[in-house]
Amino acid sequence: MTPERVRAAVVGTGLIGGSVLLRLHAAGLDVTGWDPDEATRGQARLAGVPVSPRLVEAVADRDVVFLCGPLPTLPATLLEVAAATRDDCLLTDVGSTKAELAAFARGHGLTGRFVPGHPMAGADTAGLTAASAALLDGAAWVLCPSPGPATEAFRRLARLLTVVFDARVVPMSPADHDAAAALASHVPHLLAGALAGAVRRSALREAVLSLAAGSFRDGTRVAGTPPQRTVNMLLGNRREVLDSLTAVTAVLDELADALRSADGATLTARYAEARAARVALAGRTYDEQVRSFPVDGDHADEVAWLCGLGASGGHLSGCGVDDTTVSYAAVLPHAD
Amino acid sequence: MTPERVRAAVVGTGLIGGSVLLRLHAAGLDVTGWDPDEATRGQARLAGVPVSPRLVEAVADRDVVFLCGPLPTLPATLLEVAAATRDDCLLTDVGSTKAELAAFARGHGLTGRFVPGHPMAGADTAGLTAASAALLDGAAWVLCPSPGPATEAFRRLARLLTVVFDARVVPMSPADHDAAAALASHVPHLLAGALAGAVRRSALREAVLSLAAGSFRDGTRVAGTPPQRTVNMLLGNRREVLDSLTAVTAVLDELADALRSADGATLTARYAEARAARVALAGRTYDEQVRSFPVDGDHADEVAWLCGLGASGGHLSGCGVDDTTVSYAAVLPHAD
Repeated sequence: MTPERVRAAVVGTGLIGGSVLLRLHAAGLDVTGWDPDEATRGQARLAGVPVSPRLVEAVADRDVVFLCGPLPTLPATLLEVAAATRDDCLLTDVGSTKAELAAFARGHGLTGRFVPGHPMAGADTAGLTAASAALLDGAAWVLCPSPGPATEAFRRLARLLTVVFDARVVPMSPADHDAAAALASHVPHLLAGALAGAVRRSALREAVLSLAAGSFRDGTRVAGTPPQRTVNMLLGNRREVLDSLTAVTAVLDELADALRSADGATLTARYAEARAARVALAGRTYDEQVRSFPVDGDHADEVAWLCGLGASGGHLSGCGVDDTTVSYAAVLPHAD
Repeated sequence: MTPERVRAAVVGTGLIGGSVLLRLHAAGLDVTGWDPDEATRGQARLAGVPVSPRLVEAVADRDVVFLCGPLPTLPATLLEVAAATRDDCLLTDVGSTKAELAAFARGHGLTGRFVPGHPMAGADTAGLTAASAALLDGAAWVLCPSPGPATEAFRRLARLLTVVFDARVVPMSPADHDAAAALASHVPHLLAGALAGAVRRSALREAVLSLAAGSFRDGTRVAGTPPQRTVNMLLGNRREVLDSLTAVTAVLDELADALRSADGATLTARYAEARAARVALAGRTYDEQVRSFPVDGDHADEVAWLCGLGASGGHLSGCGVDDTTVSYAAVLPHAD
């Protein structure tokens, strides 16, 4: 499957789905969008992007379908789209949690062609009017590989995303994704909500807003996200979010205890530790590696290597397949 | 005192002091800097800005001195500079907490010429090399007015800051400043430290960093601040920070409880509330007002009006004084 010849569909064309649609269209792919909202379909038509009035028409005869509706709608949409497409049509989603939907797909015998996905990008805006072909450019994009026929689907999708979106494809198990996303994204949404909520209740609310410099603006930005989207995300990863929150409040309690007892040495040590994580984010260096596997077989080694790559902070920058071999271009954080 | 003719000095020329120095110099004022660090003084000389090798020389015969060293050094510096300057030399500082230093100045009979100040700007960098003449451009800049001779000092400084820095001068009592800054700045630093610290301890640390999208980068940015600066700030406003943290963790507990019981309706309501604070920040509209007071008298009405203006989210955009009247150009959030 040459990426340029892929026939794609995007189901749900809000902020993320709309950005996927615009990018695939801009890249010259044959792509059709569908959204349950008639006004949204009209906006897409105005933007010159093909849309179908009916879901089944949009996805019929496609090679790949991106499922991009709200998180709670994804299981039903997955079944509907699976029923309306050929068995070799690859399915993926962009939901912010992965374990539940992966288990649902397994329970419905769809593991072989459904590759759970999650592009790590977003904005405190919503809808197709906020979407852009560039939003996902170069984004970290989690894909969850599985052994068996699913591995072939993973390779096709990894290739498409690296070529068309310049994505950093992060292969991870659904469980690792949900644990990492809880710390990287979901708990930050809880902290931002708590901070903005406390300001809202403060008698000095207006003064706090006029003093708001970088730290407050940054710390509450995601509290501007449409509430329902945040809530779906939190509910969809409930256990991991609560576990990660416990880890974060443990550090917060240490900081507060040290502050309460005016223990400057402990505070400084904790902030030096926190700063190291932040500096690591900005200052990471990478090693490149090419790794090959046989195209046939049960793919257990390939999937184990892929999941290990993602869990250790690496990603794929390319994927090529010939008659006998699949080769991945991998990028790994440099081990000191 | 015409701002352009002011003779100024800046004591401590790191990130904030250096930016004050560069801006005053760029505006054409006669200004001299001093820093205890010889290398920093050398950098200033290289940038073409006048510096003195000795503190007393830098501040002698000046009309206004900005005290910009680390927070714990300010009381001693205040006394040293006060002793080396004339009684009509205006003193101000840029420390991130105000009540302690204001009380210290009162205890040493310096209230009449020391105006506590705090420009709300910053960066996760430090030192003169990170400073710029533009860093404080248009910043919210808290000044604490007091009745009596201090009011005249406040007016002079408000005029200087609005003219030279295009500052939004926010007049507040030291107590209100410290309470508001705790929520606007200090607690966000605690939350960022806790989040970055928890990531540092996580087994999936590297994966979390590779998934880090906007919410994590934003939520931990201030954790990149030099630890000692953060710790000085937190220790300098300990009681208010702990009180505000209690208010924030109360909302966080509500969010966590609702999440634990999968109560989507409560979560949505809390996020709608949090979003309202965030939207208010972006969407505030303002009314302009000019307010005049007699230059003489005890200034009690003037100070009460000024402190009320800041506490209700307003600021000064200008200050003019003639023989009989002081006139403030004030900007207030529009009451709905």
